[in-house]
Formats: sequence, C-alpha cells, structure tokens
Amino acid sequence: MGLVFQVDRTDAGGGRHGRLVLPHGVVETPVFMPVGTAASVKTVEQGVLEETGSDGVGAQIILANTYHLYLRPGHELIARMGGVHRFMSWERPMLTDSGGFQVFSLSSLRKVTPDGVEFRSHLDGSKHFFSPEHSMDVQIALGADVMMVFDECVEHPATYERTRDSMALTHAWAQRSKDHFETNKERVPWFEERGGKTQSLFGIVQGGMYADLRKESAERLVEMELPGYAIGGLAVGEPREVTREMIARTLEWLPKDKPRYVMGVGYPDEIEEYARMGVDMMDCVLPTRAGRHGLVFMREEAGGPVVRMNIKRKEYAEDARPIDESCGCMVCRRYSRAYLRHLFVSGEALGLTLNSVHNLAFYLDTMARVRGDLAG
Amino acid sequence: MGLVFQVDRTDAGGGRHGRLVLPHGVVETPVFMPVGTAASVKTVEQGVLEETGSDGVGAQIILANTYHLYLRPGHELIARMGGVHRFMSWERPMLTDSGGFQVFSLSSLRKVTPDGVEFRSHLDGSKHFFSPEHSMDVQIALGADVMMVFDECVEHPATYERTRDSMALTHAWAQRSKDHFETNKERVPWFEERGGKTQSLFGIVQGGMYADLRKESAERLVEMELPGYAIGGLAVGEPREVTREMIARTLEWLPKDKPRYVMGVGYPDEIEEYARMGVDMMDCVLPTRAGRHGLVFMREEAGGPVVRMNIKRKEYAEDARPIDESCGCMVCRRYSRAYLRHLFVSGEALGLTLNSVHNLAFYLDTMARVRGDLAG
Repeated sequence: MGLVFQVDRTDAGGGRHGRLVLPHGVVETPVFMPVGTAASVKTVEQGVLEETGSDGVGAQIILANTYHLYLRPGHELIARMGGVHRFMSWERPMLTDSGGFQVFSLSSLRKVTPDGVEFRSHLDGSKHFFSPEHSMDVQIALGADVMMVFDECVEHPATYERTRDSMALTHAWAQRSKDHFETNKERVPWFEERGGKTQSLFGIVQGGMYADLRKESAERLVEMELPGYAIGGLAVGEPREVTREMIARTLEWLPKDKPRYVMGVGYPDEIEEYARMGVDMMDCVLPTRAGRHGLVFMREEAGGPVVRMNIKRKEYAEDARPIDESCGCMVCRRYSRAYLRHLFVSGEALGLTLNSVHNLAFYLDTMARVRGDLAG
Repeated sequence: MGLVFQVDRTDAGGGRHGRLVLPHGVVETPVFMPVGTAASVKTVEQGVLEETGSDGVGAQIILANTYHLYLRPGHELIARMGGVHRFMSWERPMLTDSGGFQVFSLSSLRKVTPDGVEFRSHLDGSKHFFSPEHSMDVQIALGADVMMVFDECVEHPATYERTRDSMALTHAWAQRSKDHFETNKERVPWFEERGGKTQSLFGIVQGGMYADLRKESAERLVEMELPGYAIGGLAVGEPREVTREMIARTLEWLPKDKPRYVMGVGYPDEIEEYARMGVDMMDCVLPTRAGRHGLVFMREEAGGPVVRMNIKRKEYAEDARPIDESCGCMVCRRYSRAYLRHLFVSGEALGLTLNSVHNLAFYLDTMARVRGDLAG
C-alpha cells in the first residue's frame, strides 16, 4: 500500500480539504511542496524547514529532483545510504519528479526515440539515457513516497500535431512506467523497515494548451488506474488565463477521490486560486529562487493583494519594520527590512537564507489559510 | 560603568576561570568569540548561533568589524537603527575591533601620518580617513559592549626600528583613543535605555616579535588604566612557537585583574593552549572560513588530537557517520559526512552553513571544556 487519500469536505467552488497518508507521514491538503532540488531546499536547513511558517508546523512534504540526484551523487549511492529521506535527514514525506522536465530543460543534445531520451549532462557533458524503466529504477532507488511517470515535456508554443504526438509518447511511457514500477516496487530501500509499505506512482496529464488533448490525456491516464494525477506542461510561458483554463478543464476529467497535483506553479495568488479550484498539491521553486534574487512576498495589509518587494531597494535602508507586519515567521519576528537589505547588498549568504525562509513561510501560511477556509 | 571582571580561580599554569559582566550580558571566560564581519557570522543565523555547541548555550559574545560596517551600511545608519545589536538582532554582548587591522590588510593606497590613515575602500576605491578619534566615533555609533583602541598594525617581518616606531604611534593613538572615548562615551545609542551603562575601551599591546618592545608596550598601556588589554599583531605568519612565546611574555606584564584578549587566533588546539596560559578572550574567522572551504575540525577520539577533515574527499562519499562521533552539535546529531560531502561537491549553500555551524560548535565546545577544567 502506497497511499490513502481522504477528502473531508468539498466546497461549492470545487476546492477540497483532505488528508494524504503516505509511508513517511500524513499530509493535510491542499499542500504546497518546497523544492529540494539536489536533496536540499536551497539555503534552508531541514530543521528550519520543519518549523517554517507562522504556525511552526513547517513543510509537510518536499520535492527532490530525480535528474539532479541521478547525476550527483547518483541514485545507487543514495539507495545504499537508505534512500533520499535518510540521506538528507528528512523524515517527512517526499516526492520525486521523473527527471523528464530537467532532461528537456537543462541537458543538451537531447535525442528522443520511442524507447527514451539520450542526453548530455549539464554538469560535465557526459552522455546518458533515460527511459521510463530507467526513471522508475532511479526513483525507486531514491525512495520518495510519491514518484512520477516519465513524460516528454513539449516546448511552448507547440503545434496541435506536435503536442498530440508528444502526448501519445507520454501515454506509452506512462504505461511502461507503471508496468516497471509494479514489478519493482518492493525494491524501495525502506520497504522492509516500513512493514511492506511502498511508493506511489502518479500519472501526468499532458496535452499542451489544447483542451481536447488534455481531455484525451486525462481519460487515457485514468484508465491506467494510478493512485494520483498531476497536470504537467503548464506555466511554461502561456498567459495565466490559459493556465487556469487548462487546470479547470482537466480537473473535470480527473477522479474526485484521488489527489490532483499541478506541477511547477506558481505565484502565491496562483497557488491560492488553484487550491480553491480543487488542486490538492503544488510545488514551485519560486519562493527560494525569488528569495535568492532579493525578492520577498508580503501583503501591505492582512488579506490584501500579494506584493513583490525588492529588498535591495534604497527605501528599505533604514526601515525597522519586518518584511510583512502580519507575518509570524521566524524572519519577520526577528529581522528588519534594513538588516535584510544590508545582508543582500553586502553579499552576505545569510540574506539569501532569510529571504528564502520568509518566502517559504509565506507560501505555507497561504496554504494553511486556504485549508482553514476549505475545512469549513 | 562598562564592565566588571571577576576571576574565580587561577590554576598553576596561569589559566583562569572568570566572568565578564557587560551591558548586554555575562560572559564566562575564557571565551571564544565568533566573528560577524559585516554584522553576520557568515552563513549562520543568529538563532542558530544562540544554540550552537553541544551544551546548546551558543556564542556568548560575537565580534563585528568596524571597517566593514563603516563602509557598508555606515555607522551613522546603524546608530540611527539603535546600534549594531538591534540592527542585527543580537542581544548578547558584542565587541568591535578598531578598523586598524582591516585598513592595513584590505584597503589600498594607505598613507599613514601621525594624525591617522588615509586609505581607499576595497569595495569601490573611494577615499577615507581614519584617526583614533574617528575610529572611536564609529565604534561608539556601532555600540558594541567592548571597543578597541585604534592601532597601527606593522607588517611581518618588520625590523626592530620599524616595529618600535610603529609601536610609539600606536601608543600615542591609544591615548588619543582613550581621551576621545572618555568625553564621548555617553553617546552610545543605548546609553539611556541601559540606565547609563556604556562601552568599555580595551588597549592593544603591539611590539611585533620583540619581547622588550612587547614589555614596553604593555607597561605604557597599563599606565593608561584601560579596563582590558589585547595582544595584537600576532598570527601574522610567524612560527607558532614565537606566537606562544610573545603571548606568554606579554601576559606576565598585564594586570591579573583585567581581561586579556589575544586577537585573531587560531586553530582549536591553539585557542585551548592560550586559554590554559591565562588568555581570557580570543576571536578568529577560522571556524567559518574553513567551513566555507570544506574544512571541518574533529577528533578521532574524545580527547585526541584535532584533525582537519576535508569534507569533499571521495572517501566520505558513503560515510554515514557524523563529522565527529563525540560531537553533540546540531550538525553531528543530524547529518552524515556523505550528505555534507554531497552538499559541498554540489555547490549547495547549505553545506557551507552546516560546516560553519559544526566548526563553531567545535570551538565553543573546546572552550567550554577548558572552562570546566579551569573552574576546578
């Protein structure tokens, strides 16, 4: 058994409050998942991540990237160390992506065949081959609670024909992913110590910006009876109305009793909007990446619109206020805008950490508030 | 009143256990002071610093560099923000150096006159002038509990004549530092809120590697009746036996009822050795700087010699042990060598933080153990 998903309540807008029970713990949904690319949520220590947010509850589940960990330190090394949880000392739930997105966005000289993708590492140019079977082997070795089918990510914009052909490949690869996972799922490093619990494999709906392809993709994946479904290939440059429309349409075709995950979105107001539409899981590098660029999220007043504050601006040089006066995170409880500006301007690494911790808290707090509303 | 210093016990070797009562708190001596160059102990959050070490007590007192804070964000800005404690949200004691050492080691185009030093900023080449009076004004604006007289740091090696002339300048500057401090010491930003308590100004014994000059310097400074004395101009490239000899000799000439501070040393075994000789205070960038270069300190067995471990070495790739199995710091309690190596090799910023936190804990633990021995 990989997971149990329970929806407690669904409101008129489709938003739902639920619980996802995974081998490493329980996740209250809707949930935002910080991204720990190379087994580290950049600049943030795991102990801090366990307490981030105004309620001190911290991140319930985090992501790690299969592509990055495959290249360095290698999935077999991580398996020998007991899996990615033990390797990075994170005992709460985790999710790995399939590696597909990074193969298509980071590596060079990709050659896609029906069998898989040949590519060169962005680190050293070395040649590698990823197939659905290989992605499964890597993700089983990493041992996250949730893993993802290997998919092709189509470029944006893409023609209808190109998108349709890519989607067909993604479906074939999803079936191969599932077949390989089913016959190997007992090989996860913690299988025995967790009493025979194992990982769960989610499908990924593709279909670009074409609603009929999204429908076909959802239907085809639902036939495969996977325990959860992601909506992939969004937030790739399309207008935000299109993202929302694709999500809204796809949600209609996905089973209501399974978790629904939108990959790689978005700004704080977007994650709130999608959660209220019925999305259960989201992940994004934005809180940490923006933090490292000196961009922090805040609201001028509680419940007001989200403001992106550039902490390096001169106007904050002597501003004794916290980033957000209504935020209860450890950064806002202790540090002023003036100090954060000084750290950033002076190139002090602590500034990147504090910006990232606040932004993560902002995302987690946003989701906690939405969960409160949806719980009724 | 700036400080009260009490020696509880002195052992046969001259090592002593004591307490230094400062406006922002009590410091048990001998003490190691982490360096927070630009109002940040590099890569380490203040809350972590308050708990670093196996006993969870954290750093009792930290340093900040006058030169760095003068250039950026500026001492007047920090004064307007309430002083450096409030600016960086560190409510425990602090010490600022005089800026002298950095002016001589970091800036360019220095021109020394009896009045002071003209120099160019290492940041933008802008021209500045530091005199003893100006260093005092800057340090009063910063508002650390302990500040240092402005001194000239002679290069190493230096001839007897050069060292003697430089020392004479340092003595004249020490007197001017004291005079200016005495007439301005009520201008510290927290003077009123701390009920009229103020800062303490320490002298700095110079004299290079010449014992007779060290003696003359100590005697001259003792005549000035300062509340504490530092030994400066060491660990500048001389053999370690010479450092030890200069410290041992100088300690003889310094009053036993005042705190004695050796600036800018050293390796963990050195700080232990000097503390056992009767040095009460030491600071060094080494734990954090080494950490950022992947060097961590450990002992193969409790009480054994200090080992410098290069965490990026291949042999640690699958090593599940903590850096130091007898260390109780947050890094050793949670993370393996394998994970720390992965972080460092992958360029993950968290690696620099964790290495630094462990090294700081190693230094603080070393000093806590020495204090325990000296307390008898």
